[in-house]
Amino acid sequence: MDNAKKHSLTPFLEPKSVAVVGASGSPGKAGYELLRNLLANGYRGRIFPVNPKAREILGLPVCASISELPEVVDLGIVILPAEGTAGALRELAAKGVRQAVLLAGGFAELDTSGAQIQQELLDIIRQTGIRVLGPNTSGHTSTPNCFTSAFFPLGKIRRGSVSVVAQTGNFATHTMKHILTHEHFGVCRVLGIGNKIDIDESDALEFLADDPETSAILMYLESFKRPRRFLEVARAVTRRKPVVMLKGATSEAGKQAAVAHTAALASQDKLVDGMLQQAGVVRIWKYTHLILAAKALSMLPLPKSNRVSFLAPSGAMLVSLTDFCTGLGLSVPAVSPATVRRLQEISPAYLPMRNPVDIWGSASTRGVEFAYGEGMEAVLKDTNIDAVVPVLMLARDSGVPPSYQFILDLAKRYPEKPVLVSFSGEKACEEECKAFLEPKGVPTFAEIEQPFEALAILLQCQRSMNH
Amino acid sequence: MDNAKKHSLTPFLEPKSVAVVGASGSPGKAGYELLRNLLANGYRGRIFPVNPKAREILGLPVCASISELPEVVDLGIVILPAEGTAGALRELAAKGVRQAVLLAGGFAELDTSGAQIQQELLDIIRQTGIRVLGPNTSGHTSTPNCFTSAFFPLGKIRRGSVSVVAQTGNFATHTMKHILTHEHFGVCRVLGIGNKIDIDESDALEFLADDPETSAILMYLESFKRPRRFLEVARAVTRRKPVVMLKGATSEAGKQAAVAHTAALASQDKLVDGMLQQAGVVRIWKYTHLILAAKALSMLPLPKSNRVSFLAPSGAMLVSLTDFCTGLGLSVPAVSPATVRRLQEISPAYLPMRNPVDIWGSASTRGVEFAYGEGMEAVLKDTNIDAVVPVLMLARDSGVPPSYQFILDLAKRYPEKPVLVSFSGEKACEEECKAFLEPKGVPTFAEIEQPFEALAILLQCQRSMNH
Repeated sequence: MDNAKKHSLTPFLEPKSVAVVGASGSPGKAGYELLRNLLANGYRGRIFPVNPKAREILGLPVCASISELPEVVDLGIVILPAEGTAGALRELAAKGVRQAVLLAGGFAELDTSGAQIQQELLDIIRQTGIRVLGPNTSGHTSTPNCFTSAFFPLGKIRRGSVSVVAQTGNFATHTMKHILTHEHFGVCRVLGIGNKIDIDESDALEFLADDPETSAILMYLESFKRPRRFLEVARAVTRRKPVVMLKGATSEAGKQAAVAHTAALASQDKLVDGMLQQAGVVRIWKYTHLILAAKALSMLPLPKSNRVSFLAPSGAMLVSLTDFCTGLGLSVPAVSPATVRRLQEISPAYLPMRNPVDIWGSASTRGVEFAYGEGMEAVLKDTNIDAVVPVLMLARDSGVPPSYQFILDLAKRYPEKPVLVSFSGEKACEEECKAFLEPKGVPTFAEIEQPFEALAILLQCQRSMNH
Repeated sequence: MDNAKKHSLTPFLEPKSVAVVGASGSPGKAGYELLRNLLANGYRGRIFPVNPKAREILGLPVCASISELPEVVDLGIVILPAEGTAGALRELAAKGVRQAVLLAGGFAELDTSGAQIQQELLDIIRQTGIRVLGPNTSGHTSTPNCFTSAFFPLGKIRRGSVSVVAQTGNFATHTMKHILTHEHFGVCRVLGIGNKIDIDESDALEFLADDPETSAILMYLESFKRPRRFLEVARAVTRRKPVVMLKGATSEAGKQAAVAHTAALASQDKLVDGMLQQAGVVRIWKYTHLILAAKALSMLPLPKSNRVSFLAPSGAMLVSLTDFCTGLGLSVPAVSPATVRRLQEISPAYLPMRNPVDIWGSASTRGVEFAYGEGMEAVLKDTNIDAVVPVLMLARDSGVPPSYQFILDLAKRYPEKPVLVSFSGEKACEEECKAFLEPKGVPTFAEIEQPFEALAILLQCQRSMNH
């Protein structure tokens, strides 16, 4: 705990007081929505909106200028256009403020005049020692502290244990909105590092490494500011916590797009890949997998090894998912003779049972809950199996369990084995099951292949940590 | 039309009268649900339930036995257990019935006694010339004829133009339920070929090749009964209609699972791959992609080539999707100078515009509808672009168009270019947009990568047809 407290990023993530320079009284404006987010999250520190014209915003008394702030705040949040940002930073430093987050875009990522302002910011940082997050970031969030500098309307951000470092504003805006409205897991710290003129991915990773609130780290990066430092920091943290990364700008066409986005000069992907492998960072290849990985890392233990069992009442599902697992490096091994005996007991005698588990016979003779429940328990008990995926094939007219409680009970009884639920069939059943299971800690996945993709990521994390 | 009419499968798919041998008056029983499906689909042919005990089921008069059928029906649907199936088939043949679908499982896929019954069925077929679909199938469907032999409770099956040949009961059961409740597209013919003791994938493909109702064909197979015949038939059809296949049992572990499922001896996947390539069949690798491909083939034209444009208000989205496209073999080319000029006109001057299209500036100054609408039109007009994907990043509080009509209008104005919509952001907005666009013909995809995966499949179809 002490370690994390002492890190130079601590006041960014656990500020006791903040000034919002550029606060606005107009709904829809960034300077208003930021305050609204801050209040919606129940931030308990002192908030000082700064605006030369307003007197009160959202019930908070407003300071006319930075110099009139009644105290030296832990963090200055600057939500002015690029042109006003350098002046505000200088004033904050003059006031004695040691940390600032600069939200505006319009710097080096845009044009030469923006690059000039960015240079000015660098000069101020060098001259005053003030630490800066951004510019060109959609903000940062710290749910353990009920704090956010996000200006995208989000409301209350759900707390979780996975932290995110993103060289994109998208994670703290639409992706976060997606997570808040589609999913039930939350986040811990989210750091939009933007143009990272001062604080970069290595600093962020270093903080999160020692952060007791953070159990795993997700990253989206388009470039590495200090590759050597990153390798050093990452290598140490990946032995203790999973680090999963989507590296943007891996293709030539993607690199061109990245120049327009973050002015980042992307490196050759082979070098990146080698470095990430050395560092024990797990790579993913789809933006959507940032959410998939966040969900899996939030809600599941890491599997001990790659041996998976799954259950469905469909031979084709079992066959094609077995193929799919093989492609992902997951194994679908034989289960022990005792498990086979148990599976045989719960099934009509004429059906030869094995892994993967065809629960068709059992479900049609003894009901859906019995079939999935007893089948899952049999394979969860088996020491040959590290993770279990019930593929729930449900339709109101042809079999839905009276309750999904049995899945929660099983997941609790075998806490060291990931249990991931997926679906085929009727939409309403799927929605009902997700709404029941996820708030209680068992993840569900809309597509039948996703649990296996999630498991493959968790497995790589596990291997990195034990490397 | 005439060609299709004369095919030996025509009476299976366009029967004028059917006998349901094993009809039941008990809700939940297969012999009852089958009749309910038939009625729910508005089948206009004559239906004769056969049951020695019942007198009326669902308002239909019941025949006590096959021999008492008042006419020689086009199709006998046998929904008896395996043990009763052979007798029923013999009686149907004796009655003069020339086509039968055998729904029960419990034959060669199960055990030696099942294999004996299957041999008996083969003998009857040889002796009588009756044609048989199945056994061990969850039925077949023909929406142009409002007909189905499916016994899984489905209700009305939506009509569409894509047909399916499946060596699994799953497609006509839970997958169909999934499509009916999650999606808005329909299907044309669905043939569950089961143990394919008579009619096999080559027969089915041959029928669909000349079927004027079928625009594209999806297949799930675990084995090829007559590989040479299949190659011959497929080679001819793929020049006229796309054929997309998920081949199950490609891995060693998958082959073992397949033995339990369909008693199929799977072939070496390299040989399969070579054959499918020769035949112009497009392979997919995920069960879920059967649905993705069905949707794309139902709702979209094939792209002329691989040049895609996409629009989003997020640099990271544009960068990571560009990488993703590159991996799929899609190109994200430069647009013409005229298009760049137009994109520049609709954007704040300081943002340099290109493909992929960052609509952030335009959306934040002139609104979401203007930004997506004008941006889409600019790239749709461009002869360098074959397909367009708006990645709608929506949240109630921060920008939703007043209506999604503009997307329909654009898709109609450029009918030769696929328009595929995807999302990030607030769930409610996404659901609203999908519910509006899809019934009117524009497909939407929950995950941002899916439109590109769908396009990659369509592109392969296009290349096969022009090979």
